[in-house]
Amino acid sequence: MAITLDSTAPDFDERFAAFLETKREVSEDVDKVVREIIARVREEGDAALVAYTNRLDRNDLTAATLRVGAEAFEEALAAADPATVEALELARDRIASHHKRQLPADDRYQDALGVELGSRWTAIESVGLYVPGGTASYPSSVLMNAVPAKVAGVERIVIAVPAPDGILNPLVLVAARLAGVTEVYRVGGAQAVAALAYGTETVAPVAKIVGPGNAYVAAAKRQVFGKVGIDMVAGPSEVLVIADGDNDPDWIAADLLAQAEHDTAAQSILITDDGGFGEAVAAAVDRQLKQLPRAETASASWRDYGAVIVVPELADAVRLADRIAPEHLELAFDAAEEVAAKVRNAGAIFIGRHTPEVIGDYVGGSNHVLPTARSARFSSGLSVLDFVKRTSILKLGTEQLRALGPAAIALAEAEGLGAHARSVAVRLNL
Amino acid sequence: MAITLDSTAPDFDERFAAFLETKREVSEDVDKVVREIIARVREEGDAALVAYTNRLDRNDLTAATLRVGAEAFEEALAAADPATVEALELARDRIASHHKRQLPADDRYQDALGVELGSRWTAIESVGLYVPGGTASYPSSVLMNAVPAKVAGVERIVIAVPAPDGILNPLVLVAARLAGVTEVYRVGGAQAVAALAYGTETVAPVAKIVGPGNAYVAAAKRQVFGKVGIDMVAGPSEVLVIADGDNDPDWIAADLLAQAEHDTAAQSILITDDGGFGEAVAAAVDRQLKQLPRAETASASWRDYGAVIVVPELADAVRLADRIAPEHLELAFDAAEEVAAKVRNAGAIFIGRHTPEVIGDYVGGSNHVLPTARSARFSSGLSVLDFVKRTSILKLGTEQLRALGPAAIALAEAEGLGAHARSVAVRLNL
Repeated sequence: MAITLDSTAPDFDERFAAFLETKREVSEDVDKVVREIIARVREEGDAALVAYTNRLDRNDLTAATLRVGAEAFEEALAAADPATVEALELARDRIASHHKRQLPADDRYQDALGVELGSRWTAIESVGLYVPGGTASYPSSVLMNAVPAKVAGVERIVIAVPAPDGILNPLVLVAARLAGVTEVYRVGGAQAVAALAYGTETVAPVAKIVGPGNAYVAAAKRQVFGKVGIDMVAGPSEVLVIADGDNDPDWIAADLLAQAEHDTAAQSILITDDGGFGEAVAAAVDRQLKQLPRAETASASWRDYGAVIVVPELADAVRLADRIAPEHLELAFDAAEEVAAKVRNAGAIFIGRHTPEVIGDYVGGSNHVLPTARSARFSSGLSVLDFVKRTSILKLGTEQLRALGPAAIALAEAEGLGAHARSVAVRLNL
Repeated sequence: MAITLDSTAPDFDERFAAFLETKREVSEDVDKVVREIIARVREEGDAALVAYTNRLDRNDLTAATLRVGAEAFEEALAAADPATVEALELARDRIASHHKRQLPADDRYQDALGVELGSRWTAIESVGLYVPGGTASYPSSVLMNAVPAKVAGVERIVIAVPAPDGILNPLVLVAARLAGVTEVYRVGGAQAVAALAYGTETVAPVAKIVGPGNAYVAAAKRQVFGKVGIDMVAGPSEVLVIADGDNDPDWIAADLLAQAEHDTAAQSILITDDGGFGEAVAAAVDRQLKQLPRAETASASWRDYGAVIVVPELADAVRLADRIAPEHLELAFDAAEEVAAKVRNAGAIFIGRHTPEVIGDYVGGSNHVLPTARSARFSSGLSVLDFVKRTSILKLGTEQLRALGPAAIALAEAEGLGAHARSVAVRLNL
């Protein structure tokens, strides 16, 4: 059973602080193993990539069969349930149309001195998308990563997805196909990250690697960071639902469980101003757990990390929400819009009683790759901005150089950088 | 002497590829030491922070004297050369006015189904700015990091700057004061990063850490990434100058040396379509080196990493520039504007014969914190965007949920996530 906290209790601050500090992830120390894997793939290329893949994924590939053939995409599409394909198409189109609004505008202007300044955005040339294998091999995540990259204008998008025991989720190929990605390799783990970062004979290197993965993938991304760009290192998922007593406890319980079923380390939190409602939701969670296919995962998550926090007024929840900085924040009460405007730290906000977070996982149009583990305090969900970069532009004529040059020389000299000073002075005959 | 490459030579591709792969940094393996330092500061707080600081910086501080007192800022300002202060003020104002244009706009709209979507930007609450000590303690870098954070709306900006042997560059305090930063601690290295990330009794923790540092600082930033946000890990600086024979060789030589004097690992590259001009620039570099205060550093950089590349046409240089992905790109020829438009991978472009890169270091208004070591292929210079984060907004009513719900249910079921499906179905009475 999840913990219950009463915000008016004398020890609340202490208990809430301890709750925030609870570590939900065992941080495996895999750095050394990962370092070896990366070094070997760098040195030996395909030979190492194939050897690791066959050993770790119990697979039987050669350099020639690492890449998924063109026909496999068509086969997967033809074999898929049409309703699923249609839903993926709807998701793709809604993600594309929302993310198009995120394309940043170039800027170029002249200031009062006549200095021209600018910012110009261009797409990253090539991006690698890591897709986990096994049960967490989600076609929706393929869309959430690949579609924004496409919208940004990335020319080459490469998917690395392990095929443990030779099994690849066909819906991953369908999603790739619908997103317009045709370069997919059956590789995973640190060896896949190494291949994407440094390249092998078969896999050309990319400039940036995105997508979630296990501890090995996360450690490998950290290690290749700098050689290539990486996105955030994702932790287990979480939801904070703020709800009043006018909700159906069954609805809110279902939302808490949707998060909990992801992972035993996922976290579901309810804040309510109605203690009786909180108890009703907890009871509904227990009832629903009995019917869930992933009951084991969900019940471990709810038992170990779930929480019901009772506050005197829902408005008080804003302060707590900002400290929790949840990946997902659901606001299920009438004044949701006003409260949403006051929240600062949240990856995504789902407003009102008819916006379950699950809509955002699939077909809302916004991205489901969001900052976890309190990182909404300093980072954002995945967007088109993750697939573009900005070049700044500066242009002076003789007059502008005369106007700004002396100050640049003064600062260069103050910093002891004589050649800096000279590079301006020589042009001004100083 | 720098190397000379001829792009028409039969072995050019090979030599250019080798040139690109040249490692300019010795990557010290300091991970283990840094891990210990961070763990001790986390456990022991101020006691460890003070102990490390006094030992490593040969300092004599207590928890009570870690923070720079208010009077020290005023004293530094009063003692500074007025011309330097005026130049810093000009730089601050120009940086502020340029960076204000980078503030992202919120977005909120309703799509054809009546679904409301949005993106809302908020400032990060608190940011730590690392400033190196010793000779690389640059007041201009304080402005380049602190002013964008101020423009973004960050309420709490904290500077950590080591004071080796008790010495603090007073211009760092002046720049902090001009940027409106009043919380400055005399701490550096991995211990400073640990204090900023985890907090001590004296230093409250921040949500993100930015700014350059040595190998220990870089390793510490990597290790605390996730607990807090970090900016890019900066490598040694570089410039690529593309110039035709109509330039004064002395001007171009001065620009190459301005980069080279930063660091023995800095890199200065000239691409020209005029071999004779290339030779004249190299000769001018040698002449100027004799008069430089930092001749030793600059000449080591030029000797070990400098290059002159001769191409048949300047237009050919675009392809090479994109592969080099320089931090700074100077275009000193008449058609600079046209060529600039074609370049994709560059941190900043300086257009025309009267825009030496040094202007951008100080008073151009654009940021001088730019992607090094070919990372302009996937990342951007520092901007207001580094100090804000985006919350996505989704809002459905019953009608919208009826329209999108079935597709969400289909995808949840295809992914084997029963509680996800139920969280939508329960609201639709399915």
